[in-house]
Amino acid sequence: MKKVLAHVDRNMSGLVSDLQTLIRQPSVSAKNEGIEQCAKLVAKMLKKSGIKSEILRLKGVAPLVYGEIKSKKNPNKTILFYNHYDVQPAEPFELWDDPPFSGKVKGNKIFGRGSADDKGELITRIKAVEAFLQETGDVPCTVKFVIEGEEEIGSANVEQYLKKYRKKFACDGVIWEFGYVDAKSRPIIGLGMKGLLYVELTAKESIRDAHSSLAVIIKNPAWRLIDALKTLRDSSGKILIKDWYREVTPFNKEDLKLLSGEPFDESGFKWEYGILQFVNNMKGLDVKKALAGDPTCNIAGMISGYTLQGAKTVLPSSATVKIDFRLVPKMDPKKQIARLKTHLKKHGFSDISVKIFHGEAASRTDPSSPFVGIVKQAAKESFGSYIVNVSNAGTGPMHSFASVLKAPCISIGSTYMFARIHSPNEFARIDLLKKTTKCMCHILDRF
Amino acid sequence: MKKVLAHVDRNMSGLVSDLQTLIRQPSVSAKNEGIEQCAKLVAKMLKKSGIKSEILRLKGVAPLVYGEIKSKKNPNKTILFYNHYDVQPAEPFELWDDPPFSGKVKGNKIFGRGSADDKGELITRIKAVEAFLQETGDVPCTVKFVIEGEEEIGSANVEQYLKKYRKKFACDGVIWEFGYVDAKSRPIIGLGMKGLLYVELTAKESIRDAHSSLAVIIKNPAWRLIDALKTLRDSSGKILIKDWYREVTPFNKEDLKLLSGEPFDESGFKWEYGILQFVNNMKGLDVKKALAGDPTCNIAGMISGYTLQGAKTVLPSSATVKIDFRLVPKMDPKKQIARLKTHLKKHGFSDISVKIFHGEAASRTDPSSPFVGIVKQAAKESFGSYIVNVSNAGTGPMHSFASVLKAPCISIGSTYMFARIHSPNEFARIDLLKKTTKCMCHILDRF
Repeated sequence: MKKVLAHVDRNMSGLVSDLQTLIRQPSVSAKNEGIEQCAKLVAKMLKKSGIKSEILRLKGVAPLVYGEIKSKKNPNKTILFYNHYDVQPAEPFELWDDPPFSGKVKGNKIFGRGSADDKGELITRIKAVEAFLQETGDVPCTVKFVIEGEEEIGSANVEQYLKKYRKKFACDGVIWEFGYVDAKSRPIIGLGMKGLLYVELTAKESIRDAHSSLAVIIKNPAWRLIDALKTLRDSSGKILIKDWYREVTPFNKEDLKLLSGEPFDESGFKWEYGILQFVNNMKGLDVKKALAGDPTCNIAGMISGYTLQGAKTVLPSSATVKIDFRLVPKMDPKKQIARLKTHLKKHGFSDISVKIFHGEAASRTDPSSPFVGIVKQAAKESFGSYIVNVSNAGTGPMHSFASVLKAPCISIGSTYMFARIHSPNEFARIDLLKKTTKCMCHILDRF
Repeated sequence: MKKVLAHVDRNMSGLVSDLQTLIRQPSVSAKNEGIEQCAKLVAKMLKKSGIKSEILRLKGVAPLVYGEIKSKKNPNKTILFYNHYDVQPAEPFELWDDPPFSGKVKGNKIFGRGSADDKGELITRIKAVEAFLQETGDVPCTVKFVIEGEEEIGSANVEQYLKKYRKKFACDGVIWEFGYVDAKSRPIIGLGMKGLLYVELTAKESIRDAHSSLAVIIKNPAWRLIDALKTLRDSSGKILIKDWYREVTPFNKEDLKLLSGEPFDESGFKWEYGILQFVNNMKGLDVKKALAGDPTCNIAGMISGYTLQGAKTVLPSSATVKIDFRLVPKMDPKKQIARLKTHLKKHGFSDISVKIFHGEAASRTDPSSPFVGIVKQAAKESFGSYIVNVSNAGTGPMHSFASVLKAPCISIGSTYMFARIHSPNEFARIDLLKKTTKCMCHILDRF
């Protein structure tokens, strides 16, 4: 094991340059930009590290890269690394200090879209396996890689892949695609994820834009949309759709204990985002409870009419809003969609069209699972300490993995909490990439 | 006079090619694109037609093109043509069938941004003067041209020009920059214009975009803006700002008589915009009263977060809306701005910033003015009939002209009612350009 860890230390420049190679291949799933090319690049990179790889396909869907290396001494224990090779759109480009796909290294940081989410995480998993193979000629347990290309647009098809390749993907535990490290360099062991319902609502009032002097007689779709939106939630953020919270259950005692124990850097957060207070003036445990357990109705995008510089006196013909609702355990996305549609109809907004981008349920892993113990120990050995988190505030297809593969899922990784993922100037920290690669080695070793 | 009108008939191809030349020079004031170049082009074109021209300048402001031709036989009667050489932005480009600055001719139509508003109108005035000069070596009255470059961004500085050049611009009547022709080819003689207050409201909640999972704790500026907007007007369109309508007076009997007499093609309007009913189900006289006399609060543009294709789970840092309020006579833009600001403050939205693009007051010319009689007669001779309109639903700096030059202002021109001005596929009709040029000849002749 010492030799393996030393290998990681010695080969950090290789890790950095492989990560740069991945960043430099744009792979924006929202625009279907570079997806095919990136899948091929990842499959090649797995092979280069000694891992058998292949590209799996479903019709009309981004390819999934599968990797596998059987353990000689311990073939029947299998860990699965779930990652994704796609990235968020890089817009707005003008807010990046360097081009978003440059992979520029400045001191301890590698910048670029995907540097942290998720190409940085992926590279730590690959390099951990490579270290074992090169130093020992074997891996301590069988390792599988499931690397999808639609995570950033909601992983709508990963469940289909999981179901089709249920046997191929069979495993005893899943290491999740991301993992956060707090400001004190403590990794956060995440046991759950929220669900997500992403919709686009569009109001149309006429077939073409008109001169705005006609606003006295032709209806304005932006006002129409605002009227509809205003019925969805109150100013405190509470969602007003009937039965929206119906299945939500409060935290149990064990969850509350874990939440109380979780550190949360309120001032760091506020500083990073330049804010003076949180929503509804929340503080302390309430903030942590909200992050782990509150459903949201967030406007992710909104557009109508003329939005460039200066003044244009136009009456727009349509107005669109993109909303992401975060869901918590027991909320069924399909039920929630039906409730949203019923709400709009009931409030007289049947004219507003609803496009569903995707829905996925929330998931949580039982804190008492032995897999949790293994990850805790590995985190302690590589990082010195750790934090256990009941549920991440974000979303991923954890529910699909947990239900199809019947395996516990845990997130742990290298992403600094304020690494600006999904935002301009996203970066990965090289020191954390190294610690995480070692942590993955420990997890494989103990599995 | 016969020779002059025959000259117009013979020279339509020259009019069309000069209009194409003007269209092909983009002049988007909102983006300060091609303004200087277009001013020079217009000054050159005036000279080419035998009209003395010069470019007037105020510091930091678009230049104003001034043209003048003194009448030998009737030097002391002066008509002033007010036009503008700037155009609206052409976005969204993808909705144009041909490039917006191509000036493409298809049958009876010339397409392009500015083809109708206002380069098409301008060319009819120039060609009317040219016809007199070439056929008679004189003009029936002194003619002045005031051609500004900021009409589409609210004519914020034309009043400054008018005040500075009050003597140079002195005149006995103003022919306005636009004029509409209805579906039955009847020109609309416009006696008034609404005022305009154009503002941009911005809500900011944090210094950078965040992952939308943080929407549980970081406030969303789009929701904040919606909360504020919802206080500005009700679903019927009524503005809820205190005292907004305080100075508004109802139409007098004469106005109501004119309004009753105005034809209005409801079904043509509905067909053009693909709508089934007007705001609040208005019909008949109410529609005409609204167009001439109702203030509005129109959302001309609105943007926040990710608005491209697909789904991006982002929590935006800011949200912006552009609003144009149309004003009616006696509403003072400065007072209305103060009322808007007080409203936002009173409702707890002091955090929302207000940027004023411009404000201008409404104006109406007395229907009993002799100038109105001259224009009616000219319209009858060139178009066969006419309609008198109490006030246009649109805005222009008529109040500045009327108050500084103390001259009556009347709009009459060549723009087909559904010519898609300010919208993609704007066009001018060649038959109407010809009739309007002749109408301008009649006006000059009778003045």
